[in-house]
Parts: sequence; C-alpha cells; structure tokens
Amino acid sequence: MKAFHGTVIHSLTLGEIEILEDTLLVVADNGRIELVEPRVDRDEVPALLQARGMTTQNQDGDEGNIHYLARTQFLVPGFVDTHNHAPQWGMRGLGQGLHILDWLDRITFPHEARFADPAHARRVYGRCVAGFLQQGVTTASYYGSRHAAATDVLADVCFEQGQRALVGKCNMDRNAPDTYRDADTEESLRDTEACIAHVRAVDPEGRLLQYVLTPRFAITCTPELLRGLGDIAARSKKSANGTTGHDHPEGMAIQTHFNEAEQEMASTRALFPEFRDEVELYAHFGLLTPRTILAHCCYATDSELDRLMRLGCGVAHCPVSNMTVGGGFMAAPVRTFLDRGVPVGLGTDSGGGFSSSMLDAMRQAIVASNAREVQSKGQLKGLTIPEVFHLATLGGAKVCGLQNKVGTLEVGKEFDAILVNADPALPGVMTMVEEEDSLATVFEKFVMTGDDRNIEQVFVRGRLVKS
Amino acid sequence: MKAFHGTVIHSLTLGEIEILEDTLLVVADNGRIELVEPRVDRDEVPALLQARGMTTQNQDGDEGNIHYLARTQFLVPGFVDTHNHAPQWGMRGLGQGLHILDWLDRITFPHEARFADPAHARRVYGRCVAGFLQQGVTTASYYGSRHAAATDVLADVCFEQGQRALVGKCNMDRNAPDTYRDADTEESLRDTEACIAHVRAVDPEGRLLQYVLTPRFAITCTPELLRGLGDIAARSKKSANGTTGHDHPEGMAIQTHFNEAEQEMASTRALFPEFRDEVELYAHFGLLTPRTILAHCCYATDSELDRLMRLGCGVAHCPVSNMTVGGGFMAAPVRTFLDRGVPVGLGTDSGGGFSSSMLDAMRQAIVASNAREVQSKGQLKGLTIPEVFHLATLGGAKVCGLQNKVGTLEVGKEFDAILVNADPALPGVMTMVEEEDSLATVFEKFVMTGDDRNIEQVFVRGRLVKS
Ligand SMILES: [Zn+2]
Ligand SMILES: [Zn+2]
Repeated sequence: MKAFHGTVIHSLTLGEIEILEDTLLVVADNGRIELVEPRVDRDEVPALLQARGMTTQNQDGDEGNIHYLARTQFLVPGFVDTHNHAPQWGMRGLGQGLHILDWLDRITFPHEARFADPAHARRVYGRCVAGFLQQGVTTASYYGSRHAAATDVLADVCFEQGQRALVGKCNMDRNAPDTYRDADTEESLRDTEACIAHVRAVDPEGRLLQYVLTPRFAITCTPELLRGLGDIAARSKKSANGTTGHDHPEGMAIQTHFNEAEQEMASTRALFPEFRDEVELYAHFGLLTPRTILAHCCYATDSELDRLMRLGCGVAHCPVSNMTVGGGFMAAPVRTFLDRGVPVGLGTDSGGGFSSSMLDAMRQAIVASNAREVQSKGQLKGLTIPEVFHLATLGGAKVCGLQNKVGTLEVGKEFDAILVNADPALPGVMTMVEEEDSLATVFEKFVMTGDDRNIEQVFVRGRLVKS
Repeated sequence: MKAFHGTVIHSLTLGEIEILEDTLLVVADNGRIELVEPRVDRDEVPALLQARGMTTQNQDGDEGNIHYLARTQFLVPGFVDTHNHAPQWGMRGLGQGLHILDWLDRITFPHEARFADPAHARRVYGRCVAGFLQQGVTTASYYGSRHAAATDVLADVCFEQGQRALVGKCNMDRNAPDTYRDADTEESLRDTEACIAHVRAVDPEGRLLQYVLTPRFAITCTPELLRGLGDIAARSKKSANGTTGHDHPEGMAIQTHFNEAEQEMASTRALFPEFRDEVELYAHFGLLTPRTILAHCCYATDSELDRLMRLGCGVAHCPVSNMTVGGGFMAAPVRTFLDRGVPVGLGTDSGGGFSSSMLDAMRQAIVASNAREVQSKGQLKGLTIPEVFHLATLGGAKVCGLQNKVGTLEVGKEFDAILVNADPALPGVMTMVEEEDSLATVFEKFVMTGDDRNIEQVFVRGRLVKS
C-alpha cells in the first residue's frame, strides 16, 4: 500500500483538466487506486489511513509509505505512447527531410536489420525502454523489428523494467531488401505465433504485456500475409474469455501505418489496385477492428473517416514525424477526427519522430494543428493544452484498449502515474514556478517547458519504475 | 592561453558544414582564436604549442590548459539568439493559442510590468541569462522591459555572467495599459539615452555589450518616439569612430517586431494609414539600416523584400512563436529570404516561444519550413540541418552585425563556442552514439535530439561561462 497527499491532475473529458487539490490518493498492493479523496487536511491523513488499516509509522516526506507532495509537485497519469518503433531508438533524428520510402531504404531498414542479433537487441531495447520510462511513458505500443528473437527480447525488457507495453514483431514479407525481410509468408506468420506465445509465457495474466499484430504496412505485406494476420485476430476474438489481459472481447490488438504520405498511398494503390482506398484494403483482410491502432492518417476522405468510426479504429497521431520525416509535412486533421468521434492518441513515432518525449509530442500536436488551421483557412481549430494532455493520457489509453485500466487517476484504475516536480531549484529549463502561480499555471508551465528532469518518479501498476 | 585538440564543426556557407578532424585550436589570452590546424596528431600537440611559446606541463584530459577531446566531443560556435525577451523568461509557455494583441494584454504586459522593481529584475534576469548560457546561447539580442533601471540590471547581469548581448529598453509610449507604458515620448527617449550611457559605462570597450534601440513595434510607439529613436540611430552612425564595440560604421543596432501577424498588421495600418506597408513606415523614421533586426517577417510582399534587401536589414526568424503564439500560425518564408539574399538568423522569441533552446529553434525551423513547403505547393523547399545550424550561428552573427567577431571558429574570431559532449553514458535523451557513426552522424544526432545536458562547456570571448 502507498499513499500520496497533494495535487492530482488528470483529464476525464477532452479539453477539460480536473485539478484535485489536497487529495489523498491510496494505491493498494495490487497496484490499483483504492481511494481518491480531494480536500483532505494534511493532519487528517494518518487517521484516515489507519481507518483503512494502513500503517503510517513514518510521515515525513519521501520516507515511509505516505508521500506528502510539495506545492510544486503533482501527480498526473502516465503518458501513453501509441506509436513507437523500439529498434529505431538509436536512429532518432537521422534522415530528416527524406520521403518515406527513401527513408526506409536508406536509414531505417539497415538499422533494423541489426536486430537479427539478440545481443544487439538487448543492449538497445534496454536503453530504449529505460529512456521512455525516464520520460514518463508508462504504456507504449511498440513495433519491434521483423525478428522473432529480438521481439521476444523486447517483451522481456518491458516486463523486467515494468513498462506496460503492446509488443509486436513487424511483419514484412516483400518490398524490403533481402537483408531485411521475412523469408516468406509462412515464416512471417510462424514467427508471429511464436512471439504471441512468448508474450503469454512471460506475462501469463497479461498484467503488463499484450501482443499487437504488426503488419508494417500493406506495401511490405503480401495479401496472404495480411490475410493470415487477419485470421489470427479473428481467432483471438473467438477464443477470448476475458480472464487475462490477453483476452480482449474485441480480440488481439493490431497496428499498422495508414494514409501516411502521398508517396506511400500511391505505392499502395499500385500494389492493390482492387481496393478504392486503404480502409477498404485493411478491412478486407480483417485488420480493422476496435483494437486497431492506425498510425498517422494524415489523409482521410469523409467516407474513410465514417467507416473508421463505425469500425471503432483508433488513430495514433504522430505530429513530430508527420512534420519532418516521411510524410507530406502535413499532420493529420486531428480536429476532424475529434469532431467525428474517432478515438485519437499521441505517438512519438520514435525514431521517425526525432523526439522521444511525449511532452514534445503534445507541443508538436499544438504546432501541427495550428499549421492545419492555416491550411484549412481557419476551419480546423488548433488544439489546446488540455486537449493534447487528454490525447497523451486517456485518449491514448482508449486507442490501446486500456481505458478501463489506465489513462486517469480514478478509483479502480491501475496506478500508472508520473510524479511531476516543478521545483525551480531543480536543474533543467522549465519555466520557473512563482509563489502566486495557480496550479493550472504550474501545470501549463510543465506541459509546455518541462522535460524528464521534472518527471521525478514514474509508476506502472503501482511499481516505482523511475526514481 | 587555451588549447583544444579534437573535432571542430562550423558552417562558413549556408547549407555546408565543415568538419575539421584532429584539429588543434588555440585561444589567446585576449579571447581570440589564434590557430586552427586540422589533422594534427595528438603526439605533435605539445611540441606545436611549445613552438608557440605555450607551456604544456599538464597533458591529461581536463587538467592543464590543453583539452584533448574524446571521440564523442566536439566544438561548435556558440548559438546566436537574435530575438529574445528577457522579462518573459518566467512566462514561457503561457497563453498558447492567443492572438498577438490579446496575448500582450493578458499575459505579457502584466508580467513585464513587474520589472518596475529592480530587485525582481535582478532575480529573474540572473536566472534568464544563466539559463541561456546553460543552453549554449553565447550571444542574445534582448528586449528588456520598458524600465530603464531593470534594463540596466539586464546589462549588468549579462556582463557579470559573461554573455555577449545586445540589450535594449523597450520603447512604448502608447496603446499599452497605464500600468505598463512609458509616461510620454520624452521620458521614453530620456530613459533610452540613460540606458545607452549605462551600457557604455559598464563595458566601455564594448567587448560584450551593445545597446540596441528597441521600439516594441509601431503600434505602441507614437510617430514622435519612432522619429526620436531614428535620430539616435542616425547620430550614432555619424559619431561612430570604430574604436570600440559600440561604434559600428552603420550605427547602433535597432530591433523591432515586423509583419508578425495579420492582427498586428491591420492595427498598424489603422494607426499609420499614410504608409503603404511596414517597410515604408519604419524606413520613414530612419529605423531600417544594415543594423536592423526585424523579428518574424511572417508576411512580406516582393517589393518589401526587395527594399529590405537593399537596406541590408536582417530577419530574426522565430519558428516556435510563429507556430504557437501571436501569429497566424504560419512562419516566415525563410527560403524566400535566403534565395533573395536577406540575412536571416534564428530566435527563440522566449517567452512568446515556449522553448528557450536554440536546438528547438533549429528543429522548429525545419518543421515550420516543411509546413511552408506544403502551403506553397512545394515551391519553397524545407530547410536542412546544415542550413538551420548555419542560421543559428553565422547567420545570427550577421544579423547582429557581429560576423567579424563570432559565428564560426576561424582564426581571428573571438572564441564563442560550445563544447558538445555526446557520450552515451551521460544522462539525457540524446540518440546514443555508436562506434561506427561518422562525425556527421554524431553531429546530426546532437542537433536533432541533444539538449543542454550535452552542452558540456560554453565559452564567450575565451571565458568559460558554463561548466
Ligand atoms: Zn511508424
Ligand atoms: Zn518578440
């Protein structure tokens, strides 16, 4: 059992921030939030906890199991990174300005090919997962490399370090160099099944880990491979009995890149002339379900959006990579998605995105939406700080099918949280907090100017994973 | 005397990076670079230095006056921030999404008004200047608040901490709240003269400091005030004898906000209907000279650009604030400026810009130029890493009239430099450097993903100002 007394900030509704002052938040030993009681006097805390059967020997600051937060500290939900390429951790920032297919050939595939070596995978993934935890990413939806062994390592590392993660071996059986391609469809599917089994073996109850089917995108997948993956998804739905975190009533999670850039879309149309658009294509193979995470969606026609909404697919919005690498330098029309009720989360898209920070993703979501506002002649209004914070937390949780577990700090949810420290005496460059600042102002300063140095502690399922 | 042996990277020409390996760089006691000799074996260093009369008792690492750089370390020129509001240090990130005039009234003016108290100024400016040095800003062109005493404090703080700076009291004698406005034109000009005298008294030779005339923008200045400031500029040109850093043959530096946003431009036109555009307006009052730094220029007609080029004015491009606060969410057409030969530097525009990092300004210059590429249907090509690095160093030095002193690491220039450390063992989130990385790759990783934790040492005029 753990308890905090101080400020709690989260977002239950798009565009609204709830700031709970003097709140007593109790986390049970199973990692769940058991109590969230605002407006509790500090003096009342020990009695309240004792009444709940919690020992409270030690009440001063960091020691003991009660943490009294300072005025410059507050709890927020952990960040959910809905789109992240773990094997690209070591290439963030490279290849700026290249178009998607050139960037894949020249930068990405050579980097990912090195994950044929599981020792390389362990070294890089160890740093990658630690790096994201350091930055408050409590949940990530990871694309692994195409290698089964390396993907197993990624799952192991997430589990060991305590990060909640969706992990998928990248499926790609064509249109990639011989040095970095699944040998054939059969191998690609066999490796996928092996990775699924590994994830279930490492974390049988699915407390932290889930497998996510990961066709890289239609360009690198034969129709047979897409069909095979769709079949796995369908079977997982049928067999789901809801007893573990692996058994979701809508089946296994799926992720792919979708309508990212004109170059990619034209190439897809040439390979699959029988489909009118990418919605038709992926839907045909059974890959669009309420568990599907579609990265980017920079382009979407009205009819595509309608269909995505009906299918319940979510969008991983990745403003940093959209504006720099691989795209048309035009981010997704997020305002349209939100108006239409399409679920949206944020993604770093690390390493297409140069930044591995969800704070940067939030800021760039604002920047990209402002550019979109101009391009639409004012029709699509830019995003606000409360909106991007919602997308980075509960929005992302919904996209990952985890909204009942994480994304807010409500009773019954698992305690995935960040303890922010905005003390101006800390190193770093966050805008200094002044005595007269409201909590809303302190929060705004953190979101717009803080960095991982202001992320003092990170918890996943109640476990301290950064301190 | 100081010597470094290792990699030196700078940009002499737009779009080109010069990477000098195994270079012996010697800084004389007067702060000037005396030798830049590439391809020197480490073993030869002591003899070469002894031949120049330099003692070399201690050759190991950081000790002594020879610094042997590791493979992950390199020197680059210090960053030049061409547009920076010192009194906004404490409000970075606030007021996102507001339009310029609302943002001034609701956020900025109340913040700046507090600098009526010189003790407040000393506290905030102390942190501000240290914060920029920490981030490698060796030269900044600062707007102070409207207060003479606080502006004197800003000059003092820059001089004490060793930052090269252009410092100006903000002139504003109308269209601002009573609580934050120069009492009248006369007071505004008298205070300006007093600040000029103070800057010359603090740094008589102008080694680090220069005064910069700072009409906030035409909206807050009466025609008489603009005329008075133009007269000071003209007199400073006449009296310039070139013996100190204050005596530039083109006269005193001038800075203002220019064609920033539609709301601002419409308001300017309403106040000054007799001028066709802002070029005509500011030129009429003698405020457009080769020493003029025009912030933003988000909008510029062909005829305006031609005239700016002939007048020799420079542009302070501030992509972060252009895309978030106060503007039309559309950054300046930098590619057009560069094609036309208009000098361009980068500015953080801290606190309109939420970030105080010139690395962020470089990244956002890429992002903003990519958005501009889309908006121009591919006509204005996005900026590259070598281009934005050039703008952040030599480009900015030119805009500030300091290109003979700083901006590159060439013999004869003053040693304003950053010692970058890209060691993957450091804390931070920079993309890890691998054994096989070329120096160009290490440099790219730093520019796109490094932060102040990778800025190990900072020098201004040979003096260590961050370590
Ligand atoms: Zn991606
Ligand atoms: Zn400004």
